Amino acid sequence: MADLELIHQLLTSAQTKILLFVLDGLGGLAVEPGGPTELEAAETPNLDRLAAEGMVGLHQPVGPGITPGSGPGHIGLFGYDAIRYQIGRGVLEALGVDFELQRTDLAARGNFCTVDREGSITDRRAGRIPTELCAELCAVLRQIELPGVELFVEPVREHRFLLVLRGTELTEGLADTDPGHTGVPALEVTATDPAAEPTATLVRRFVAEARELLAGREPANMITLRGFAKRPDWPLFPETFGLRSVAVAQYPMYRGVAKLVGMDSADVGPTRDDLFQTVARVWPDYDFAFVHVKEPDKAGEDGDFQRKVKVIEEIDAYIPAIVDLRPDVILVTGDHSTPAALRSHSWHPVPFLLRAATCRRDDADRFGERWCRGGEGGLCRSDDLMPLALAHAGRLAKFGA
Amino acid sequence: MADLELIHQLLTSAQTKILLFVLDGLGGLAVEPGGPTELEAAETPNLDRLAAEGMVGLHQPVGPGITPGSGPGHIGLFGYDAIRYQIGRGVLEALGVDFELQRTDLAARGNFCTVDREGSITDRRAGRIPTELCAELCAVLRQIELPGVELFVEPVREHRFLLVLRGTELTEGLADTDPGHTGVPALEVTATDPAAEPTATLVRRFVAEARELLAGREPANMITLRGFAKRPDWPLFPETFGLRSVAVAQYPMYRGVAKLVGMDSADVGPTRDDLFQTVARVWPDYDFAFVHVKEPDKAGEDGDFQRKVKVIEEIDAYIPAIVDLRPDVILVTGDHSTPAALRSHSWHPVPFLLRAATCRRDDADRFGERWCRGGEGGLCRSDDLMPLALAHAGRLAKFGA
Repeated sequence: MADLELIHQLLTSAQTKILLFVLDGLGGLAVEPGGPTELEAAETPNLDRLAAEGMVGLHQPVGPGITPGSGPGHIGLFGYDAIRYQIGRGVLEALGVDFELQRTDLAARGNFCTVDREGSITDRRAGRIPTELCAELCAVLRQIELPGVELFVEPVREHRFLLVLRGTELTEGLADTDPGHTGVPALEVTATDPAAEPTATLVRRFVAEARELLAGREPANMITLRGFAKRPDWPLFPETFGLRSVAVAQYPMYRGVAKLVGMDSADVGPTRDDLFQTVARVWPDYDFAFVHVKEPDKAGEDGDFQRKVKVIEEIDAYIPAIVDLRPDVILVTGDHSTPAALRSHSWHPVPFLLRAATCRRDDADRFGERWCRGGEGGLCRSDDLMPLALAHAGRLAKFGA
Repeated sequence: MADLELIHQLLTSAQTKILLFVLDGLGGLAVEPGGPTELEAAETPNLDRLAAEGMVGLHQPVGPGITPGSGPGHIGLFGYDAIRYQIGRGVLEALGVDFELQRTDLAARGNFCTVDREGSITDRRAGRIPTELCAELCAVLRQIELPGVELFVEPVREHRFLLVLRGTELTEGLADTDPGHTGVPALEVTATDPAAEPTATLVRRFVAEARELLAGREPANMITLRGFAKRPDWPLFPETFGLRSVAVAQYPMYRGVAKLVGMDSADVGPTRDDLFQTVARVWPDYDFAFVHVKEPDKAGEDGDFQRKVKVIEEIDAYIPAIVDLRPDVILVTGDHSTPAALRSHSWHPVPFLLRAATCRRDDADRFGERWCRGGEGGLCRSDDLMPLALAHAGRLAKFGA
């Protein structure tokens, strides 16, 4: 679906509120044949009650068989077609370090790498240098000056950094310089679009100066750049859906994606108590809150089934605090599956529950993949969930007469 | 979905293999209220085990309510959007008689028909003349010579034949000459596209000479032509999905569709043992095998419920031979439903099972429509199955970061 224009046309005013609670990487897999998934194994009396009072289903983030990254996973939950609305790699990198991209900035993901005396890459990740060294080297690269352009070089983690060029004449349309394998030099900076030639010239100069500044600093004696992108000019979430919207997320990437589509972002401390206290604090001022917890995904990525079960159980204990805010619509789900059995994101459909006064209740009285499978929500797309939430919030008028 | 470009971009290398086993016309209907379908009635212990070990669902070949022919049915299973990728009637006819169409050939489906003294059609199928007579008449038409063009006229069955013009300057864009009803003459050969005028002139001459050669040979004293088409220039299956691919099919039509998308085709003898021995023989050389059995469809078209049950049971006995090949992904389904109760193809969703190590198991412990209905695969589109199979084969990288 994801017909944002249609949804926008159907908006009708209502004094209702929607809370989207994302447990990152929620979906899982059994570790033994016929056994439970992480969510099925977890004791979640509060989520179970919401499932019993509402409706459940499974959603597919991008499409059948497609494993989404964090960007597309959230873009889908926010109601956008994740294939049409793709976030450039450079922009994602900026979001991940809380860098406030301006509309005309050009961002790229950088890697420090190792080259031999002939200039061929011998290690695309420079031996995964410590983040502290990455920060030092970024400071070195900040010495570079380009005409008419302000430069930002920010460390990310290990060999990864963010490059941002700030100017008024910069364009997208530059090819990656990372060849994707070793034994060859970094690729030249080339414009894939003739209009990008002036920008390519600037970036070429940056790379040439970086090469000189890094010479002799093995293993980090060269850089590659990829995913050149500007902040996308998309329909904004608050306007599109008519919702004063706020993100409450402790990880930069997630509040970054929310800000990219125009949501406010709440200041939040580092603990779980901080997170839910912040939700309660900002709730009166908004119609829509996106609340994000990262731990289930991390446990899944670590391959730790039991820890994923445990963090889901711990998070369940905060559900009453959310219910106490009396959202008209509560939507609880994940942005994708991260089965501990696979130690990575996966393509498996993600369980969701939606609780509102207008739900047609299904048979599910627990929250988990096997109960969601037969639910009222069926097997839908991620971007179907926002229209559904709006409908249950009484915010969508009839289509046609 | 069917975003072939996206799937192609996400390909990642893996040493895994996929086996697609198509039981033609697998889906069915009960003959009495509440009774079983053919597949539900069949005793299929081996398919049941695969269903229990994997996931199940129902797929819709083209769209809800659309009854697919054999071409679109298979095109969908091969991961292509069956509405976007349509095989011209002439090309289908060529595939059905194992005619090797070259890229510049123009093919058409021909009918012998009966015309009266005024030239009006009195029988569009010439009384369904015997195939032997059709072959004789095709030999007669082969006498026709056209400048700069090589002609092929091949009998198909009864009144049906295949016309192929081989030349370098031929174009599509000719209208059918079959008026679709009796009482009027065959339509003139007309170009729907001005660029097709030279080709129309050639075909007009063929039709005029055919009229003369057939005069007096009632009931087959005239021809009509339709579905003028060239071999389509589509993305090829092996390149698109990164799979060395082979078809093992005993009917020309099915290996023809597979060859059209670039699969190899294995030589196979006429018996069922031949079929499965051939699969085992070619399996080491390929990453993907498409195995096709026709019998369930034929029993369905004959309206023979019990025979359809019986052939499904017989085919089930060969499943262990397939499992023994240790495919990483086994996908068993039909290209469409052919309920004996309807004696024809139908639009009803088609049961499928997918068995792989990464399946999230559902509750199905038998294979059949009623168990597939609540399965993890939901009610999906046919062209969703290839991305799903690729994902379970570990051949798709993450989308976005």
